[in-house]
Amino acid sequence: MDFSNYFPIWDKLTPSQQETIRNASSSRKVAKGTVIHNGTMHCLGLLLIRSGQLRVYILSEDGREVTLYRLFERDICLFSASCMMKNVQFDVTIEAEKDTDLWVIPASLFKSLSEESVAVANYANQLMASRFSEVMWLVEQIMWKSFDKRLAGFLLEESALDETTTLKITHEKIANHLGTAREVVTRMLRYFQNEGLVRLTRGTVTLTDVEGLKALEG
Amino acid sequence: MDFSNYFPIWDKLTPSQQETIRNASSSRKVAKGTVIHNGTMHCLGLLLIRSGQLRVYILSEDGREVTLYRLFERDICLFSASCMMKNVQFDVTIEAEKDTDLWVIPASLFKSLSEESVAVANYANQLMASRFSEVMWLVEQIMWKSFDKRLAGFLLEESALDETTTLKITHEKIANHLGTAREVVTRMLRYFQNEGLVRLTRGTVTLTDVEGLKALEG
Repeated sequence: MDFSNYFPIWDKLTPSQQETIRNASSSRKVAKGTVIHNGTMHCLGLLLIRSGQLRVYILSEDGREVTLYRLFERDICLFSASCMMKNVQFDVTIEAEKDTDLWVIPASLFKSLSEESVAVANYANQLMASRFSEVMWLVEQIMWKSFDKRLAGFLLEESALDETTTLKITHEKIANHLGTAREVVTRMLRYFQNEGLVRLTRGTVTLTDVEGLKALEG
Repeated sequence: MDFSNYFPIWDKLTPSQQETIRNASSSRKVAKGTVIHNGTMHCLGLLLIRSGQLRVYILSEDGREVTLYRLFERDICLFSASCMMKNVQFDVTIEAEKDTDLWVIPASLFKSLSEESVAVANYANQLMASRFSEVMWLVEQIMWKSFDKRLAGFLLEESALDETTTLKITHEKIANHLGTAREVVTRMLRYFQNEGLVRLTRGTVTLTDVEGLKALEG
């Protein structure tokens, strides 16, 4: 186990705190598609991502989704320990978007560490501020940006993440990321196709004019 | 000056920290309508509200607004010290919505306190979690709730805050709170008027069926 490289404030912990974390933490493999946290599940703890990709999203009562942000290698997942944080009054769902290797620092240990270590408390604060910033970015996107720009941005982001211009993704799934209806996505993708920006086949969206999509995203 | 009642973790500070805060803090009166924080202003610090009301909102490049949340007596305003917080990558505007009395704990003092006191660091974390929760509530409102419900909710909230059913507010101002266009507000208010929920005159909206608005808000 080689925590020290993945836990940014490792050097600010006392040897005894480091020892406690080493003994209490575990490593875990999570298969793509697994939900590892939601409002009703037992709260895991702080997750250090060794490799893979997590998606954090909210879910409405009638099953609609919006992606809040994603977490990648070396990111730390804070809200999987939300049960230990005062005043967090919302639920998120966290799912593995790729096969993911992570370390789990149990929620109760994270809580006791943040109560005794000013470094841990401040680091938790920075993590929360980062996630808050991502959600504020999303609010600005939703409020100020028209849907064509958001969709162009999403396709470009997916293409960069998967390192391909041929995305294997359904219109339903895109709608879930962006918090809209499938019909809205289909209509806009057809418009994009007419404009020569993408090519649509069953189950794929191929980006045929990346520069054009970037210009549209603005 | 009677900080101790307004600063919830006063008892967790050392006598010397209490002394430092007493000496460095100042009280300030802010007239209704004053902007006390935005992206370009010098960052004031942590604000303890003695009386009055602050509105925290975001502003688009073309001048559109959305209210994120409001702060009332005994609330603590955290983002007026955002310059001292790592990883906060968004700007909010904070304005006095009523004449407001507050204490200012300078940003640099807040920073040094949160670096030395685990109680302050954890309290800052709780404050951030509270504000984050309010923004998440807003995201859910925007994403899942239709505009008629949001408008009904806003009118009921205003009515409760001002303790009157006759709101002196323009359609423009309502649009700024809810992040939409004035025309959209006007259209919906006229629909509400036809339904007997409100009565409109120049510059006022009178709630004529509070129960009906509550039922609509759901």
